[in-house]
Amino acid sequence: MRKLLNEELNRKSVDEFRNASKTPIIIVLDNVRSLNNVGSVFRTSDAFLVEAVYLCGITGTPPNKDIQKTALGSTDSVCWKHFKTTIDAVGVLKQNNYKVYSVEQAQSSIMLNNFYPEKGQKLAIIFGNEVKGVDQEVINASDDVIEIPQVGTKHSINIAVSVGIVTWDLFQKML
Amino acid sequence: MRKLLNEELNRKSVDEFRNASKTPIIIVLDNVRSLNNVGSVFRTSDAFLVEAVYLCGITGTPPNKDIQKTALGSTDSVCWKHFKTTIDAVGVLKQNNYKVYSVEQAQSSIMLNNFYPEKGQKLAIIFGNEVKGVDQEVINASDDVIEIPQVGTKHSINIAVSVGIVTWDLFQKML
Repeated sequence: MRKLLNEELNRKSVDEFRNASKTPIIIVLDNVRSLNNVGSVFRTSDAFLVEAVYLCGITGTPPNKDIQKTALGSTDSVCWKHFKTTIDAVGVLKQNNYKVYSVEQAQSSIMLNNFYPEKGQKLAIIFGNEVKGVDQEVINASDDVIEIPQVGTKHSINIAVSVGIVTWDLFQKML
Repeated sequence: MRKLLNEELNRKSVDEFRNASKTPIIIVLDNVRSLNNVGSVFRTSDAFLVEAVYLCGITGTPPNKDIQKTALGSTDSVCWKHFKTTIDAVGVLKQNNYKVYSVEQAQSSIMLNNFYPEKGQKLAIIFGNEVKGVDQEVINASDDVIEIPQVGTKHSINIAVSVGIVTWDLFQKML
């Protein structure tokens, strides 16, 4: 099977991306420390035509050399905003009728494979700091918690990988 | 909803991991350059109890400081082998009755959302170099090609994120 050339992939231009009808998901980063992780989240958000990325608290913002290393230009296509606190972002999202989910390990969380978004429902998905995860106060302000089932020895998955897993999972459920 | 403490997650010890019945997936890295990506693949493989990671060609191997930065100890739990070439690894896998899939963008590839593994079938999934992707010769030696559908401006997704997406997708289809 012949590999496709880049020009055969029919990807969107930045203008086409900005004008396209989006996957109704906003990704919210709660105090993510690593700029490489932030850049990778932009690249994934571009691939699945995500509506926006909300960068909260200490999370770095473009333009930034270390974000660019992993974003590879996707900060030009994907919309983003910075919020002083993640709680501020949650407030704005709720006012705009987003259902707000934190991705965490918590009591009575919904396992990702059991989570099916309501048709037409706009979703905001919060991912947390590399060490502390999503802040408990932010979880309390969320509508619910989604958990990625894990069966190994470690306590969590890298945050950029988690964004890939959850965004793909929800994207394909909306296909 | 209260976040769970690490000790409440009931994760496996390294011994329990090694003795556990595994998800019948081997992840094959075809000349992956970044040691951070390799480490991240170990961490994801631990989370989903993957059988092994095959590191081929120039792909770095543990023990290595830069792999450890993102693997965070998961090189202790997940089995791995190094092969001089990816073609060597494919040969061994086929002899051992694995169905071998490359993850790429190719003519007549199977979209990930349309791919359902046969029950009981052992799978080997090949991921390629950060710039060149999976080598055409390796694709020719594979049984088929799986593609992650992408609808943005960029041509590909980060390799560690791709491993997360495909491994989660197959893991939950096997649940």
